[in-house]
Parts: sequence; C-alpha cells; structure tokens
Amino acid sequence: MDAKNILIAQSGGPSSAINASIAGAIARAMGSAKVRNVLGAVNGMKGFLERKIINVSKQITSSDDFDMLIHTPAQALGSSRFKLPKEEEAYEQVLEIIKEYNIGYFFYNGGNDSMDTVARLANYFKLRGEEVSVIGIPKTIDNDLMETDHTPGFGSAAKYVAASVGEVYLDTIVYPKPSVTIVEIMGRNAGWLTAASALARQGGIPAPQLIYLPEVVFDPENFVKRVQAQVEKDTHVVVAVSEGIQLADGSYLSTMGDVLDMFGHKTLGGAAHRLEEMVRANVKIDNLKTRSVQFSSLQRSAAHLASMTDLNESYECGYLAVEAALNGMTGVMVAIHRTGNNPYITYYDYADVNLVANKEKHVPREWITMKGTNVSQEMVDYLLPLVRGEASERMEGGLPQFFRFDHSDTVSPDEV
Amino acid sequence: MDAKNILIAQSGGPSSAINASIAGAIARAMGSAKVRNVLGAVNGMKGFLERKIINVSKQITSSDDFDMLIHTPAQALGSSRFKLPKEEEAYEQVLEIIKEYNIGYFFYNGGNDSMDTVARLANYFKLRGEEVSVIGIPKTIDNDLMETDHTPGFGSAAKYVAASVGEVYLDTIVYPKPSVTIVEIMGRNAGWLTAASALARQGGIPAPQLIYLPEVVFDPENFVKRVQAQVEKDTHVVVAVSEGIQLADGSYLSTMGDVLDMFGHKTLGGAAHRLEEMVRANVKIDNLKTRSVQFSSLQRSAAHLASMTDLNESYECGYLAVEAALNGMTGVMVAIHRTGNNPYITYYDYADVNLVANKEKHVPREWITMKGTNVSQEMVDYLLPLVRGEASERMEGGLPQFFRFDHSDTVSPDEV
Repeated sequence: MDAKNILIAQSGGPSSAINASIAGAIARAMGSAKVRNVLGAVNGMKGFLERKIINVSKQITSSDDFDMLIHTPAQALGSSRFKLPKEEEAYEQVLEIIKEYNIGYFFYNGGNDSMDTVARLANYFKLRGEEVSVIGIPKTIDNDLMETDHTPGFGSAAKYVAASVGEVYLDTIVYPKPSVTIVEIMGRNAGWLTAASALARQGGIPAPQLIYLPEVVFDPENFVKRVQAQVEKDTHVVVAVSEGIQLADGSYLSTMGDVLDMFGHKTLGGAAHRLEEMVRANVKIDNLKTRSVQFSSLQRSAAHLASMTDLNESYECGYLAVEAALNGMTGVMVAIHRTGNNPYITYYDYADVNLVANKEKHVPREWITMKGTNVSQEMVDYLLPLVRGEASERMEGGLPQFFRFDHSDTVSPDEV
Repeated sequence: MDAKNILIAQSGGPSSAINASIAGAIARAMGSAKVRNVLGAVNGMKGFLERKIINVSKQITSSDDFDMLIHTPAQALGSSRFKLPKEEEAYEQVLEIIKEYNIGYFFYNGGNDSMDTVARLANYFKLRGEEVSVIGIPKTIDNDLMETDHTPGFGSAAKYVAASVGEVYLDTIVYPKPSVTIVEIMGRNAGWLTAASALARQGGIPAPQLIYLPEVVFDPENFVKRVQAQVEKDTHVVVAVSEGIQLADGSYLSTMGDVLDMFGHKTLGGAAHRLEEMVRANVKIDNLKTRSVQFSSLQRSAAHLASMTDLNESYECGYLAVEAALNGMTGVMVAIHRTGNNPYITYYDYADVNLVANKEKHVPREWITMKGTNVSQEMVDYLLPLVRGEASERMEGGLPQFFRFDHSDTVSPDEV
C-alpha cells in the first residue's frame, strides 16, 4: 500500500487546548510508514475547498516548535464557521481535492457541528467505495458533546473561569460598600462552563454565591429575591450566569438574542447586562454597587491558565484519531471515558459520530441543586480533575511565546 | 524605649502585589525589639477611625500563611475610598486612636491620594511634637507616582495586559473575516498600563497595531482613518486604548465621564464602546467584525499572572518602609530607582511624600511615537524587566488558594 497524506482541519471556536491535538496527530503519524505528510487546511473546510493547504509536518522544524504549538491557544490552522452544503456537489468537490492531494486520512477537529461534517463525509465516501478515513477529534469549551465524558478545551476554560471568578470576588470585597457582580460565562445552551465557577470556592471563598445555568428556566422575580437576600447576608455577592439562560417562554435573556451565526445558532452574550439592569431596578439595598464582568474571548484563549490534564488529553485525542485512521476506521470520534474521579482514571475509545453530530449534552438536572442556583457535589467531583496541572504557554522574559504556522506557505499536490 | 505597635492600612484600588508589602513589613518588624505587634486597619482610614483593627502578626500562624499572603491579590486588609477630612478634628481623632493602641509607626499603602494622607498626618504629628512615624508604601497599577521609577502592582498588571492582549489577538485571527478588536485598559490619566500592551509583540505577533494613550489628544477622525488603513493591511487589528483618552477639549471619551468617585475623580470606563461605535459607523470594510474587550478588574487582581519582579519589589518596599520608621524617619515614601534595564539594576531610597501627593506622573511624549499610535523602544526597554518571572497564587489541585485575614477578629487596646 502506498503511503498517503493526512489532512487536519480545525473548526468552530478557539480553545487553549486545540493545537495539542495537532501535535498528538503529528506524533502518531510520523511513526507510521503509511503516512507521507501531515497537511493542514487553513481556515477549516472553507480553506480546504479553496485549496489553502499547508505542510504542517514540514513547518514544525524543532522540538521547540512542537512544544510551543501544544501550548499556543486558538486554532493554529485557523477556523471557519462555514458549513459544508448538503448538495452532493460539495462532497464531490471535497473528494476531488482529497484525491488531488493524495489524502488517505481526513481529520476534523471541532464540536457538534464539525461532527456532522465528519458523519456526512464518512457516509459519502463509504457509499462511493472510497478508501478515505474521516475521523472526528473532539474540541469545545462548552463540553456539550455526547458520547464522551468531557471534551478537550473544556478543562482549561473551566480553570480560567474558576480562578478568575475567585480573583474578581477578592477584588469586590476590598470596599465595605455592598456589591453585586454578575459574571457572564460562555457555554451556549449547556451550563458546564458556568458550573465550573463553583470551583472558585476551592480557594477558601464563598463566591460565586449564585449560579444560573441554562438547564433551569430563569425566573427574574426569584432572581431578584435571591440576590437581595444574599447581599443582606454576605454584603458582597458574585453571580455566575451562563450566556444561554432562558426565560419560561424559551427566549434567551441575552440582548443579542436575535443575531444568527453562520450555523443558524443564535449569537449569545449580554445576559449579564440584563441582570445588572434588573438588580439596579429591583434590589433594594442602600449604596449597592452593581456591575457586570465579561470574560470575553479570554475564557477560551487564555492559555496562560491552561490545564495540564486538558492539554494532555487533547494531545491524546489527536494521537488516537490517527491511530484509528491507520487501523481503517472511519466515521468515528475519539471519546474519553472516566472510571473514577479520585484517583482520576480514564480510557479512550471511539464513538459513532452519528450519535454526536448536532446533539447537545446538557448538565443533568440532578447535578444542579433543587433551587437551581448552585451545583451539586457530584458536579464538583466531576470538574476537579479536569483543571489539574499548570500548562501555560512557554514564557520567555515573563511573556508568552506563540507558535504560528505560515498560512501563506501553501503547497501544491505535486509537492506532497 | 518601650516597644510600640506598627499599624498598616491599605488604600485605593486593588492590585496583585499589594499584600507582598504587608509581608515585607512583617518580616522587618518581627526582627526588631522596637516592635510589639503588627496591626492592620480593616478598610483603610475609614476602618481605622472606626477602630476596626486586627492583629496581623497574630493571624499569620505559619510560613504557609505568609507565602499565601504574598501571592493573594487585592487588599487583604480591605480598602476604602474615604478621604481624611482636612479639619483638625480628624487628625486629632487619628492621634487619639494611635495613642490608645500604642502605635509608634503608621504605614499607608496606596497611590497619590494615600500619599497626601501620609503627608498631612506626618506634618500634623511633627507640629504636635508627637513621635509617630508615618511612612508611605507605594502601590498602584497606574504607575503614575512621582519620585519613583515605577510602582508595586504595575508590573503584574502590565504582564496581565501583555499576555491577554496577545491571547485576544490569536483568538481574533482564527476566522478569515476582517476584524477590529478594541481593548480598553485602565490607568486613569496615565498611559503606562496601556503602553504595556506593546509587550504582547514579544510573543511573535503584530498586535496591538494601534495604541492610544491619554498623553496624546485623541482625534476621532484620524483614528477612523488609521483603523481603516490597518485593517486593509493586516485584516485583523487589535487596538489598545486607555480608559483615560481625551478629546481636544479635554473631555473624556468614556461614556461614564460624568460620575465622580469619592475623591472627586471622574469614573472612567466605556471608551472602548465609544470607539467600537465609531468603527462601526465610519470604517468602510465589507463584513468587518467589530468588538470591544474590557479586562475589568482582572487586570489589577489576576494574581494568576503576577510578575515575580513586581512581587519581590512590593515585598522590599514594605520591608524598607519599616526600616525607615525604625530609623526615625517620617513623611517619606519608599521609592525605587533604576540604574539599568539590561541587566536590570535598582536601588531604593526614600522620597519626600509632599513631592508625591496628589501629583500624576505621565508617559513622556518622547516615549510615544510621532503619530501618537505606538510606543518607543525606550518604553519597551523600560517595561520588559518589570514583567519578568512567574508568581501565580499558590495552586492546589490546579486552583488558586487565597489567604484571608479574619476582619471580624478585631483587637482592643489592652490586647496589644
């Protein structure tokens, strides 16, 4: 059998751990006689269709580069929100480029939308009798993929959220004046990342005192009552709120609820501002200082606070994705399973991507307390192992160093 | 001579390094026969006048506590925005409590407002012939104190800003769509902290491409032109902007420009939103994505990215403040002087607080480029040593651990 090229594309939103999967894939691929080069599509499927393809294995020229790649946040290959059209022409076009570039193994690194693409491509190639493996590598800070215990990228985001909520709380308590600080956290329709704010308490502080996840219908009246009571008790209150919280009628609290992204998802963000206004208008405490904090893109890209556990697992997922492809598998996603929290024990296997595509895994209701404003001990036990270990970017002179692929150095089929 | 008590109060805004000064003060004090206890005022001068005084040296019971205190962000003793009234009664009241608690050495840890209090108290005690040393310990992330090369707290904030601007940039470039990201940075009327965003480039990235400091009059028309040209060149542009930028008529760009804080300063914040609107309305690029990022309180309290140099210097300032007091000095602030950038060489001495009080040190115009949208190499050379070394909070299980004084465990005069 002739050696083939591998192609990796990254999709969806950035994370601090996603590039570790490329590194893992390279590590496994370079040891195999079946693989010629590891190629990368610049800007995901969109770039692939435009033949923006670079030679990843050639651009990494030292173990230093390799190590820096692992620790560099956000997609080193770039991403896109482009969704492959459902028409057969699109699939034919993908296949044409795959043949042109002698690609035998195709890897798509992303979330539930990306797994939909993996499923469709794998099915199409099977139907056509083409021997091209298509494998999904999981990645999302939202932790909302089915069939896996958790997802690469989540642990680092969780660590950032926990540490930062703790620091924000310490900042609020320096003045005697009562205060409410509402911290908005990403995660779309799943509350996993917002739940991770509960880990701030491991630092010996009471914050966040209230946690609102999208899995529980948000009741503004009750919210105001709870905040009022909590300020009366603690003086300084931090509220962690998911960007995806919804009212009883299913509408998002977020002020930007009507903007759709490229996948037709509602663009979220703004829930904290709404809650801030609610507190200002309705909570009756003298001299109450109310503010909202957005962690913005840092919660997904602040690799200065990455979790070593997360980076290791992300690397492993890339490694095992190539392993699966070399063994002739297709239409699967690498999945992490856990058999124990303490000690933390995991094993990996492969999930049928059809069971992952376009689905969302939500926080189980029993991992949220009865009143819906806190998470259970099971949730804390689940989260704790995922944030362990320090794995910042490489620091030089106290400042992070980033690895970057040269996206303009594209290759033609005869070069690979 | 009878041994006396030391009292420390913290003031102004939080920083990641301020508690290291308490630790330094304790270290020097504990070695002296002239000192009985190190006391702390809870919530600064306001708490002091209410006799909210705790025994700091008693509450630190292990070297673990001591180390955790150094690395815990935000004022461990609490702060206040309370300004001591100018009437003699206020000073008499301070003196009364000082005598009650047998305090021989009074330390005030803060910025230019705090140094005003130090100056007034020191002058008053001298006039009255009271043997009470009043010493200032510098602290501000704004780096705007006169008579010192730089201030404790600044290096850590600068490190956070530099690393985070880099990560935000990497996050913006993952999509091919052109983008402008406006990052708002603290610093009040001084551009030091915003200038530190230039250090992001040490990570091998071009961002921030434009930097706006308050030392240069902000010209909206020129801003729009520069942004337009920069996006045409780089596709993805990060703009670092100081919260304190002002128009030609001296008005703040910030939308909250009319709210005054307790010291009569204008409350800043909101400049980035204004600029975001300007870009949306005036920059003509198809599909341009424009957003603003606020680093919020994390830029001053994210001890997970503290600078070791900064923490060491903060500790030293606390240590040398006590040294000065024990040598009979009063009305001075510990000052850091630098004789070289590379190698970085410093020495400490004491500045007359009258030369520091109520003054602001601005970025010299020659450290800003001609066009006013970048900083000079001198500025970069000045900044680089200050962010060196990693000094996160103590991590356990991947999460920061915080030291907290028990503020309710106040002491009466006969206990100390």
